[in-house]
Amino acid sequence: MAAPPPLRAALVTVGDELLLGRTVDTNAAWLGRMLADQGVPVVRRYTVADDLVEIQHAVAGATTVAELVVVTGGLGPTPDDVTRDAVADLCRVPLDEDPEVLDRIRARFRERGVEELPLPNRRVAQVPRGAAKMANPHGTAPGLALEHRGSTVVLLPGVPREMKGIFQDSLVPYLFSRFAGRLRPVQARTLHTTGIPESLLSQRITELLPQGTGPVGLAFLPDVVGVDLRLTALDMDGEGAARAFDALEGRLEGVLAPWRVDVPGGDPAAGILGLLRERGATLAVAESCTGGLMAKRLTDVPGASEGFLGGVVAYHNRVKESSLGVPDATLASCGAVSREAALEMARGVARALGADFGVGITGVAGPGGGTEEKPVGTVWLAVHGPSGEVVRRERFPGDRGEVRERATQAALFLLLRFLDGRVAPDDPDAGGGTPHQG
Amino acid sequence: MAAPPPLRAALVTVGDELLLGRTVDTNAAWLGRMLADQGVPVVRRYTVADDLVEIQHAVAGATTVAELVVVTGGLGPTPDDVTRDAVADLCRVPLDEDPEVLDRIRARFRERGVEELPLPNRRVAQVPRGAAKMANPHGTAPGLALEHRGSTVVLLPGVPREMKGIFQDSLVPYLFSRFAGRLRPVQARTLHTTGIPESLLSQRITELLPQGTGPVGLAFLPDVVGVDLRLTALDMDGEGAARAFDALEGRLEGVLAPWRVDVPGGDPAAGILGLLRERGATLAVAESCTGGLMAKRLTDVPGASEGFLGGVVAYHNRVKESSLGVPDATLASCGAVSREAALEMARGVARALGADFGVGITGVAGPGGGTEEKPVGTVWLAVHGPSGEVVRRERFPGDRGEVRERATQAALFLLLRFLDGRVAPDDPDAGGGTPHQG
Repeated sequence: MAAPPPLRAALVTVGDELLLGRTVDTNAAWLGRMLADQGVPVVRRYTVADDLVEIQHAVAGATTVAELVVVTGGLGPTPDDVTRDAVADLCRVPLDEDPEVLDRIRARFRERGVEELPLPNRRVAQVPRGAAKMANPHGTAPGLALEHRGSTVVLLPGVPREMKGIFQDSLVPYLFSRFAGRLRPVQARTLHTTGIPESLLSQRITELLPQGTGPVGLAFLPDVVGVDLRLTALDMDGEGAARAFDALEGRLEGVLAPWRVDVPGGDPAAGILGLLRERGATLAVAESCTGGLMAKRLTDVPGASEGFLGGVVAYHNRVKESSLGVPDATLASCGAVSREAALEMARGVARALGADFGVGITGVAGPGGGTEEKPVGTVWLAVHGPSGEVVRRERFPGDRGEVRERATQAALFLLLRFLDGRVAPDDPDAGGGTPHQG
Repeated sequence: MAAPPPLRAALVTVGDELLLGRTVDTNAAWLGRMLADQGVPVVRRYTVADDLVEIQHAVAGATTVAELVVVTGGLGPTPDDVTRDAVADLCRVPLDEDPEVLDRIRARFRERGVEELPLPNRRVAQVPRGAAKMANPHGTAPGLALEHRGSTVVLLPGVPREMKGIFQDSLVPYLFSRFAGRLRPVQARTLHTTGIPESLLSQRITELLPQGTGPVGLAFLPDVVGVDLRLTALDMDGEGAARAFDALEGRLEGVLAPWRVDVPGGDPAAGILGLLRERGATLAVAESCTGGLMAKRLTDVPGASEGFLGGVVAYHNRVKESSLGVPDATLASCGAVSREAALEMARGVARALGADFGVGITGVAGPGGGTEEKPVGTVWLAVHGPSGEVVRRERFPGDRGEVRERATQAALFLLLRFLDGRVAPDDPDAGGGTPHQG
């Protein structure tokens, strides 16, 4: 017997605030990813006002292209929440007050000390006759599913936490039973990289694998601090997919190795803190152009205090001298944005805070302050440790914010590889030291 | 003669990556806001795949509800960019290679050292016959406008920078000439607040103005660090709107005063740096739980080095002692999260860095580390200055990231008001000092 055709979905997001742009439609993107992970592509999306006719138009249109229609928003208690009414009317079923849902809403209000349920909130207990109900772990409006012209129409609240809770707890199992055999959960693995632009990475992979990546899908997901590679496999079990991913990873190794952030989640800060913890070692950072961003990234990770002692933001040169002991002469002869200044900052902060490892970052974030010799985006990064030191000059593209983000990511990545041994200390006799990557 | 009816718009955003959720549709939100500012509400939005039939379906549907249809995406050189073809075909006009556009593309490539235009890029020079062209200041594909069934269909690239550039430089003037008298630019003013939840602010304003805000529209725009109030006026000239806004501001003064961030753009960091500059004064910050975020916020502002000397991230208690001189005895008797520790940090960092003003932040960001006496979210903020000191205890809701964001914002806001005189120094003889706001 032939496999049934894959299921297709359409989304309808409801809300004046979406059309006016006061709210960015992150629900639609999240649902697109989650459904794709179940092998269900979203083939069309509507965004409409809190308006009966508009909602009906969109849902009816969606059912012509998709057997699964997910509608978010407009299930609340206020008069402009009309999704429930619009869809019940479209499906020609009445709305009944559901005693079970009403009890749950009453209980939720009672928990918060409200004995008498405000009248508008009773509306949330209205359920289209015959609809399946899905419990809302984080709010009052349940998810609802009903049939219309051969499609399943699912209504979810617009509040992201409520929408996601119902989707994960109830809708996925519901879809598996409703569309038995037609969901094809996608196996996926993400490889994280940083420091190589998407276009170059893509070109190198195409040169290496001109015939493509075989049964494994490969997508590039760039953001300001790096590019993630998402490997996907359809119609494979977990073991088969793991083997296929391992094989592709092996083939990509040569291209990816210098750029790969081989840490779960792809955050080098988490990797650094893990390595420090393993060794009982400590870290301090000295920042100029990044102005606290590296310390912030490290302390974003819960439990950072086990290895991260703290840092000095030496925004003014006076602080580079007074708090970090960067010699006046270094600043005068080499400038604050120099190999020497970065190194002295890394050494100085390790000494001042009594840390095993120190990091120094100094550069020109812009928009002003660039020169021909040191244009905006020029950043020196230094790591000082018990076994040696390493310095790099980088040149980052982008505006002030992007330069700061990228410089921080590069410093974290350099430190991670220094700690895990992938980057060796510079030869102290080499004087000039490492080749510039900029 | 009656005024013509207001113009309505519909949006069509094109791209598989939008449907799959790999890209969040920020273009649609931006266009929604920008069009609303011109008095043109977006009444429906479609998002469709890079597919001829789907694009045509959406554009045709959009023309039934709106006289202005803006389509973004699918104008690039690759084979999956088919928006131009789809819309030309829908409007039954041929595509002609436009020599002027082709010359501009060639010139752009030449600037980058590419003499021979790659063949696929010629596609970008195809223009539907009769379409108006709008120059792209940041890329190759021009904006295009053509007529279909009484509606104006505008095609813009999907790259946000290119889309925004064309919109602002060319599309707005085009719309003003095309729809003379039917755009009604909205007059707007934004009031920024921090430290008061949206629900409470809304309640207080409703109590104060039970009859509403008259001819001025009032919208609440909350984010994690505060709530913005957006005042809007339709059908008023700039002067009339300014008077109406001033009048409403005056009436709201009593409610807003304690929470208002009265700085252009609403960023207290910018306000602080402005006040420091005016006085030739300097600032240093000592951070524990915020781990560098306050220094980062200050250095997000270009030119921060004029007043901001730097800071110390004292994540580990050892650093509070060694770098800030917080006495061991204070930490032992009062704890690192205490009024005394925050004050000593503020004094210590001002002393260590030679600054006029010092800020100290210490608290429990979570998820671990909370106690009954000092639950997660408890944060002490202190400001030390030449004229005195001020300390506050706060209790912030939210997860680790939110507590850190809110604590930083509260510290910035406290410092801003201390500098501008709205918050007086604590009475040093009062011992316990200020009432706790938590």
